[in-house]
Amino acid sequence: MARYGILTSGGDCPGLNAVIRGIVLDSDTGLNDFTYVGFKDGFWGLVYGETINLDRSAVRGISKEGGTILGTSRFGPYTEPDGGPDNIKKALERIGVDGVIAIGGDGTMAAANRLYEDGIPTVGVPKTIDNDLEATDYTFGFNTAVEIATEAVDRLRTTGNSHKRCMVLEVMGRHAGWIAMYSGLAGGAHAILIPESPESVDQICAWVTSVRDRGRAPMVVVAEGFTFPGMEEAHSHKGLDGFNRPRLGGIGEILAPIIEERTGIETRATVLGHIQRGGVPSAWDRVLGTRFGFAVPELIADGGWGQMLALRGTDIVRVPFADAVGHTKTVPLDFYGEARAVFG
Amino acid sequence: MARYGILTSGGDCPGLNAVIRGIVLDSDTGLNDFTYVGFKDGFWGLVYGETINLDRSAVRGISKEGGTILGTSRFGPYTEPDGGPDNIKKALERIGVDGVIAIGGDGTMAAANRLYEDGIPTVGVPKTIDNDLEATDYTFGFNTAVEIATEAVDRLRTTGNSHKRCMVLEVMGRHAGWIAMYSGLAGGAHAILIPESPESVDQICAWVTSVRDRGRAPMVVVAEGFTFPGMEEAHSHKGLDGFNRPRLGGIGEILAPIIEERTGIETRATVLGHIQRGGVPSAWDRVLGTRFGFAVPELIADGGWGQMLALRGTDIVRVPFADAVGHTKTVPLDFYGEARAVFG
Amino acid sequence: MARYGILTSGGDCPGLNAVIRGIVLDSDTGLNDFTYVGFKDGFWGLVYGETINLDRSAVRGISKEGGTILGTSRFGPYTEPDGGPDNIKKALERIGVDGVIAIGGDGTMAAANRLYEDGIPTVGVPKTIDNDLEATDYTFGFNTAVEIATEAVDRLRTTGNSHKRCMVLEVMGRHAGWIAMYSGLAGGAHAILIPESPESVDQICAWVTSVRDRGRAPMVVVAEGFTFPGMEEAHSHKGLDGFNRPRLGGIGEILAPIIEERTGIETRATVLGHIQRGGVPSAWDRVLGTRFGFAVPELIADGGWGQMLALRGTDIVRVPFADAVGHTKTVPLDFYGEARAVFG
Amino acid sequence: MARYGILTSGGDCPGLNAVIRGIVLDSDTGLNDFTYVGFKDGFWGLVYGETINLDRSAVRGISKEGGTILGTSRFGPYTEPDGGPDNIKKALERIGVDGVIAIGGDGTMAAANRLYEDGIPTVGVPKTIDNDLEATDYTFGFNTAVEIATEAVDRLRTTGNSHKRCMVLEVMGRHAGWIAMYSGLAGGAHAILIPESPESVDQICAWVTSVRDRGRAPMVVVAEGFTFPGMEEAHSHKGLDGFNRPRLGGIGEILAPIIEERTGIETRATVLGHIQRGGVPSAWDRVLGTRFGFAVPELIADGGWGQMLALRGTDIVRVPFADAVGHTKTVPLDFYGEARAVFG
Repeated sequence: MARYGILTSGGDCPGLNAVIRGIVLDSDTGLNDFTYVGFKDGFWGLVYGETINLDRSAVRGISKEGGTILGTSRFGPYTEPDGGPDNIKKALERIGVDGVIAIGGDGTMAAANRLYEDGIPTVGVPKTIDNDLEATDYTFGFNTAVEIATEAVDRLRTTGNSHKRCMVLEVMGRHAGWIAMYSGLAGGAHAILIPESPESVDQICAWVTSVRDRGRAPMVVVAEGFTFPGMEEAHSHKGLDGFNRPRLGGIGEILAPIIEERTGIETRATVLGHIQRGGVPSAWDRVLGTRFGFAVPELIADGGWGQMLALRGTDIVRVPFADAVGHTKTVPLDFYGEARAVFG
Repeated sequence: MARYGILTSGGDCPGLNAVIRGIVLDSDTGLNDFTYVGFKDGFWGLVYGETINLDRSAVRGISKEGGTILGTSRFGPYTEPDGGPDNIKKALERIGVDGVIAIGGDGTMAAANRLYEDGIPTVGVPKTIDNDLEATDYTFGFNTAVEIATEAVDRLRTTGNSHKRCMVLEVMGRHAGWIAMYSGLAGGAHAILIPESPESVDQICAWVTSVRDRGRAPMVVVAEGFTFPGMEEAHSHKGLDGFNRPRLGGIGEILAPIIEERTGIETRATVLGHIQRGGVPSAWDRVLGTRFGFAVPELIADGGWGQMLALRGTDIVRVPFADAVGHTKTVPLDFYGEARAVFG
Repeated sequence: MARYGILTSGGDCPGLNAVIRGIVLDSDTGLNDFTYVGFKDGFWGLVYGETINLDRSAVRGISKEGGTILGTSRFGPYTEPDGGPDNIKKALERIGVDGVIAIGGDGTMAAANRLYEDGIPTVGVPKTIDNDLEATDYTFGFNTAVEIATEAVDRLRTTGNSHKRCMVLEVMGRHAGWIAMYSGLAGGAHAILIPESPESVDQICAWVTSVRDRGRAPMVVVAEGFTFPGMEEAHSHKGLDGFNRPRLGGIGEILAPIIEERTGIETRATVLGHIQRGGVPSAWDRVLGTRFGFAVPELIADGGWGQMLALRGTDIVRVPFADAVGHTKTVPLDFYGEARAVFG
Repeated sequence: MARYGILTSGGDCPGLNAVIRGIVLDSDTGLNDFTYVGFKDGFWGLVYGETINLDRSAVRGISKEGGTILGTSRFGPYTEPDGGPDNIKKALERIGVDGVIAIGGDGTMAAANRLYEDGIPTVGVPKTIDNDLEATDYTFGFNTAVEIATEAVDRLRTTGNSHKRCMVLEVMGRHAGWIAMYSGLAGGAHAILIPESPESVDQICAWVTSVRDRGRAPMVVVAEGFTFPGMEEAHSHKGLDGFNRPRLGGIGEILAPIIEERTGIETRATVLGHIQRGGVPSAWDRVLGTRFGFAVPELIADGGWGQMLALRGTDIVRVPFADAVGHTKTVPLDFYGEARAVFG
């Protein structure tokens, strides 16, 4: 009988609890001879051997809860003084854990890979709200974020139309514009601005103006990582001392006054923020999380240490950590081109 | 046969379209001999005689749509150069409209009262997201805003719990804290900060700390109009030139770094903003809007010019404009006291 | 220091947990010197002295959960062999409980009144999905049910319009048509059929036909307790043996084939059923439940045994059991008349 | 300049309007020289040349609306007297339409293929709530149905837990159990019953009993096409005349009383019905529909008559009708096995 420890690391994400539950239910099926325990607050719990009991009753009803019952943190297993493979091996031995199941994003998978290469049996489950992991078609959490962002677009449009305003919605996506692209398409935005494709203020204002000229209220969805030529300058203001200083606020709050000034259309920004990543997961994310969870014991039983699960089409597949980490999946330009063709 | 013109003025609000539909359906019942027309963009349409056709097909299915099909604006019938009672009377005569149905907030009702006193037949329907009109138990829009804000609280809590963060949610409410109070109670916030009851930073941090000490993630809901002693100073920063200058951002963004610094608990602010006021109205707001709408033709048929509708208990009642305007309904201190007793 | 026991009885209802939490939070405020315990499964737990521990951690986060953490049943404290006041007094003494807080509908309040008259200190909190208690403006659970039913109307309308079908939705309401009335008004139904106002099949079909003739898909909302002249006959079929026998199914399933046959319009029935009463409560119901909960310790502290809480306007008030029980609050005919005027 | 006609056929499905909008927006991009028109009510409009104007303003805001703005029907282009290729060709010529875009399920694609083989330029977009088309990973509408069914599971569980009842939810899926499988997994059902895998009443009752024995309320999700050995007999009752006669009601209503009788656990059935297929589409379904819509003009521009679009992984691909029709995609047994391992 083997005992494995689960950790969730990095930003929280709807679907984490479904993965945990999917894994733990295995201990009741009799298919494998495994039991499971949770590490508290990500790699912190791994390094200090702080665990949470995980049996069937501990995971009852959790797949519909946001966040993670294990807690999470940005604690790095190699960067913190008490970390490192030797300490972790000792901790695992002390608490009687035979291997690590790491659920997290690209950074977590890189750390998991290093643990694996340092001789600690480790498997991974990919997680990112932003959907920007190359190795998998989709990650859980993304679907929920898109649903929430789309509802925000739907709500803002009615205000925009009633007041003839341009509404700008800033959504997550530092390196890839997936949430902006999906919620913008779903909500019928007139411009979708993503990091993959910088656009000039002139172009953005041309889109906005053309919508107004058709008698509609322009709706702009912008990913937080979008940039435009001249942004830095626009994003600063001259102090009384004559020096330029950066303004507070994100890209949405930078763009709105520029659009308003250039087009003469009253413009309002909304920053969706943390609301995108918490709360009840969509059914899709619960299913994806559950399927990843079901697949973990199988992966371990097959001796698949050093591998990460991924979704390809409708199948759960396995990818070596080494092939998975470090590749950001951005929105392909032809996908963007399709959407762009109908802007304005 | 008489013809009446409907206008919606001020900020948009879920339920406006239900009122419009409720009124217009009257023209099909044969109960009264009235027809209806809409004024474009609030008092602007009244002053310039710009109207929108309103028959049964124009209002089909609109009660479930946010915003207002008539458009709205903050155009004042007395403050704009082309306004004033004489011009408005001429416009009404020219387009053949016998009376005005004004749907709006306190400012709109005050203007409607002035129109009435200047001899223009006018009735009113109260509207405010903030629920701060004294004359009525509830206004439509408020319920939808509370549902949206509560969902945000629910979502933020899971993130807070996963990361052991303090989450601060800023909701609408410049003069009254109704949305904060209701969404905070519904979401189980550990502190609800409202304009009616300034609290010191020490008190807020004591609540936050006591939650953390119980092992929970503190959830703070704050109305945009909340203030605390020393807020102005806290809300500024010393420039390189040695002068203090106001920071951008609302109360949520002011409070979060202060809480973090004082308590040592990582703290994040979310500003709900425009999402609170757009989109599909709750069933409650559609019913309240519809009932107000049904009651307007009756009010006019009874010659009730100069009056506004209101909700008292489960009844739609009538209140003279003169009694209704200028009274802000704030959260009573004993209501706040009940909630405050369980903070922290 | 006194100790009081809470029970939830009858059908489950969104908002019950908010009441329980609201009461229990009192024990932490220091305002009163009370502690609380739960009775398992309604009056069953009272009779058998089966309790559930209720401290702050037991009620954490429950106000957003449907159902009741205490369990519920239709067990009657007087009708079951082990019940009766003497047994109950003994059970209370044995487990050290000084008074009973009964949360339930009309039947529960009647039983609570009898307990009170038999010398057992008892207070009540009203609960019914159907909103048919005369003593209170609204009960929690009703608002959630209306939101769910309204979403169903919204969904069915798009199917009806696409297929040019008449859609019939059956909602709860055995003795009063509140859910049908509110969800029908909110969803813009073309006919709302309630127990308070039997309508003939001819009348119903006239409404349905007039909608079709305007090119729309008729939407009918019917409360389960609605009847029409000749219903019994329609609701039976002649067996091979020549005898009439009742058909299975509720009023929706009875009406749909009759409407289809009489009007020639394809007609489909949907029975919403249990979905109306479970799951996440609306913010409104959580607030109402919480306020009732807050008011219970105060009521007890004031010695208010034999009384029930109620909502009047925006106030929580107190009503003697004797005045509250046995009065069904039906939809007033003038309310129905307003809605009826726009049918068809 | 060419002109193409769009039709939607078969049951309505969330996402249809997103497809229509996606296609029509092409006419504004200048990428192709195409214009579009809609056929009324599916193949009926094709046969009789009844069209609906489709320009940008006609498709404004429709992607968030359920159903289809074109109307739909089960009218068959070959089975109806006025149908057949010659009549259709004449109709197309008369109204100046150069090709047909058919959006529908397996039957629609089969008819589209026949039209294509009979010389009428036709392309297809797959549509089915049930997700049972082999050629595509997912169809739009399925995701929305799963979200709705999952919310129903969530709601029913709280009622089940409060009353210690077994709750049975019947969802769509005549030939394939995808909706049951996904909503059951997402909602944490204790048994998921699908057409692909008949289970005995003994097995079902063993699952139900084991849940009860753990102190939980059993939740069963059953697809409408599920069968069990002996079902026919169970589904009939002996009349006074001594003959067996089929009972009304679907599989949920058949199973519930059997479970109750066999296990002694109070059991209630809910039939979700039409609610699953109407109303606001999920963001996912709007994106999938929009992407299909964007891909249609490209497909036509490439001369891809006789082909259907499909989703493979994250790509929109093309499949000849001949390869696509007639293959039902059922839930693979290993997928079912994963879920089954945790039942009870």
